Amino acid sequence: MPELRQNFATKEWVIIATERAKRPEEMATHRAPRNPVSFNPKCPFCPGNESITPPEVMRIPADGGAWNVRVVPNKFAALSRDAQPKRVIHRQRRSIEGFGVHDVIIETPDHAGVLALMPDAEVANTLRCYKSRYNDLCLDHRIAHVTLFKNHGADAGTSLEHPHSQLIASPVISYQIRQRVHEALRHYDEFGECMFCQMIEEELEEKQRIVMLTDHFVALELYASPAPFSTHIYPRRHMASFGDISAAEITDLARTLRTVLAKLYHGLQDPDFNYTIRSAPSEWVGVKYFHWYLSVIPRLTRVAGFELGSGMFINTVTPESAADFLRNVKVEAAVAAAEKV
Amino acid sequence: MPELRQNFATKEWVIIATERAKRPEEMATHRAPRNPVSFNPKCPFCPGNESITPPEVMRIPADGGAWNVRVVPNKFAALSRDAQPKRVIHRQRRSIEGFGVHDVIIETPDHAGVLALMPDAEVANTLRCYKSRYNDLCLDHRIAHVTLFKNHGADAGTSLEHPHSQLIASPVISYQIRQRVHEALRHYDEFGECMFCQMIEEELEEKQRIVMLTDHFVALELYASPAPFSTHIYPRRHMASFGDISAAEITDLARTLRTVLAKLYHGLQDPDFNYTIRSAPSEWVGVKYFHWYLSVIPRLTRVAGFELGSGMFINTVTPESAADFLRNVKVEAAVAAAEKV
Repeated sequence: MPELRQNFATKEWVIIATERAKRPEEMATHRAPRNPVSFNPKCPFCPGNESITPPEVMRIPADGGAWNVRVVPNKFAALSRDAQPKRVIHRQRRSIEGFGVHDVIIETPDHAGVLALMPDAEVANTLRCYKSRYNDLCLDHRIAHVTLFKNHGADAGTSLEHPHSQLIASPVISYQIRQRVHEALRHYDEFGECMFCQMIEEELEEKQRIVMLTDHFVALELYASPAPFSTHIYPRRHMASFGDISAAEITDLARTLRTVLAKLYHGLQDPDFNYTIRSAPSEWVGVKYFHWYLSVIPRLTRVAGFELGSGMFINTVTPESAADFLRNVKVEAAVAAAEKV
Repeated sequence: MPELRQNFATKEWVIIATERAKRPEEMATHRAPRNPVSFNPKCPFCPGNESITPPEVMRIPADGGAWNVRVVPNKFAALSRDAQPKRVIHRQRRSIEGFGVHDVIIETPDHAGVLALMPDAEVANTLRCYKSRYNDLCLDHRIAHVTLFKNHGADAGTSLEHPHSQLIASPVISYQIRQRVHEALRHYDEFGECMFCQMIEEELEEKQRIVMLTDHFVALELYASPAPFSTHIYPRRHMASFGDISAAEITDLARTLRTVLAKLYHGLQDPDFNYTIRSAPSEWVGVKYFHWYLSVIPRLTRVAGFELGSGMFINTVTPESAADFLRNVKVEAAVAAAEKV
C-alpha cells in the first residue's frame, strides 16, 4: 500500500510507492565505468593550465607552490561581478541586473580523482575553501544568499570530468529558501525550539533512518524523502549558517561526506549525483530557528509531469530500506577490495 | 549581461543568462527519430488488448464500438483507490495511507500517434476525457487536488511509446500549489483583481512574449520563464478550475495545444516534453483570484545542483527570443512538407 508522508520542515508531501519499487541493486547505474586519465592536457582545471582559467581567487596551500585545491571564477558565469544589483519595477515585471559571484572550486589536481575515493584530508581542503569563500561573500552587503553545490556526471548536469564544485552568490533570496526559513521561524514561535534539532533527536531515538553517526554529524534519510537514497547530513550542534562550522567539524564533515559518497559509489555503482549545502541566507546568520545541512541527491530517477505539475514527488524506495542498504555498504572493505584488483 | 527576473505570480526568481545561450537550432534534439509502428501486439494500450488493462473507466465514443480515447486505471498506480485517507500524527511524523486515483488516458488507438500531428478534433476528445474525469473526481470529498499531465519521451519520464496522458487525484494539496493560491489571494486582497488576468492583459499589450492568440486562449512565454521554450497556455476568460471549461473552449484549446506542440515538434525536432494542467484545488473551484493554465515544458536542459540547492532556475534563452522563434515556426507549412516526404 502506498503512503503519503509530509516533510515536517518544508510541509511538502511525498508519495512513497513501494509497489513500484526496485531493489537497490536494480537501481544501480548500469553503464560503462568512468575511466578518465589522471592528466588531460586540454583540461582547464589540470595543473599546468592555470593560465586558462580567470585569475585565481584562492588556493590551498596558499604559498604559491603546487596546489591541492584552487578556487577560480567560472569562465561561463551565470551571474556577473560587474553588474549593479538594482531592482527595476514596471507593472508586473521585476528584474535585477545579473549581479552575483560564480566560482568554481577545483577539488584536486588529479583529473581522474573522485571525492568518494579520496583521503578524508583532501576532502577537508575542499570544505575549507567552501567556508572561506562562503564567509567572504556573506560580508558583501550586495549578496543575499550563497549556494554551494556539486554536479557529478551528465545526468546531474555536468560535462566537465575534472572534479569540481561550484558556488553561486546571488543578490536575492529565492522564494523557496525564504519560505523554508519562515516555516522554521513559525515552529520556533510555537515551540521555542529549532525544528531540525528536534528532528535529529527524534531520528536518533528511532534509529531506522540513520545512515551514519559521527561526533559532530548525522547522515540520514528523511522520513519524507523525495527520492531514492537522497541523504541529508546535519551538524548535531545547532548552527544556522555553514560559515560557523569549526575546524574540528570540518574534519568530521569531510569524513562523513566522503563516507556517504563512498557508500553510494560502491553500493550503487558510481551514480550521477548532486550535493548542495542549504544554509541560512546571510541576513539570518546566527538565528535560533534555522539549521544548515548538506543534501546529497543521487540522480537515479527522472522528474516527470506529475512532479512538475503538482510539486509532489513519488519515491519508490522507502527511506527505511534506503538507510538500511547504505548502512550495510561496508566502505572500507569495498575500498580494500577495489585496491586489490 | 545576465538578468534576474521574478515571476510575479509565484515570486520565484530566475536567472536569464544569455551569454551561455545556444541558438534554438542548437538546442534541438539530435537523436534518431522515433519510428514506432502503428500497432504493437504486445502494447497494453493498443486495440485488441483492452483486456490487459484494468477495467475501463470511460471511452469516447461511449457506445462500446471502436474507441478513439480510453481512460483506464493505471496498473502501476502511485496511489490506491482502496486506501483510507486518514491522517496519522506521531511526533514530527505525518502520514496518510496512500489513498488516491491514478488514471491513464490513452489518447488514440494509433501506437505511432503523436499529439502534435493529430487532427485537432482528436486532441479535443482527449481534453473531453480530462474534463469529465477532473469534474467527477472533484466531487469526491476525499480528493483535495487533481493533477493532469503528460510525459513524452524518456527524458520526460516515460518509457511507454503508446501516446497517453495521466491523472493523479490526491487527498492533500501540495505545499507548492497551496502557496501559489495564497500568493494569488494576497494580490486579490490588495488590488481586487486576478493577477493572471492582469498579466494576460499586460502581455497582450507588450506582444513580444506571445506565441499564439486564439478566440479563447493565449499561449506565451513567461517574463520570468524558468526554462527554454517552456510555454504557458491561459484561458482568456477568468476561470479558476479547468473543470469549468466550455465545449467551445475545449475545441479552441485543442487547436491551441496542438499548434504549440507542433511548433515544438517541427522547430526543435520532436523534443521530449511534459505538459501539465495547473488548476485550483477542488475546495477553491470558482474563486476570483486563481486562474488555471496549461504548462508545456520541453526537456532540453538538465536540473543541476544550483537549482536543487537554491530553488532558482537558470534559463539560457530569453523568453522574448523563444517566443519569436516559436511564432515563426510555420506549422501548417511544416506538416505539408513532412507529408510530401
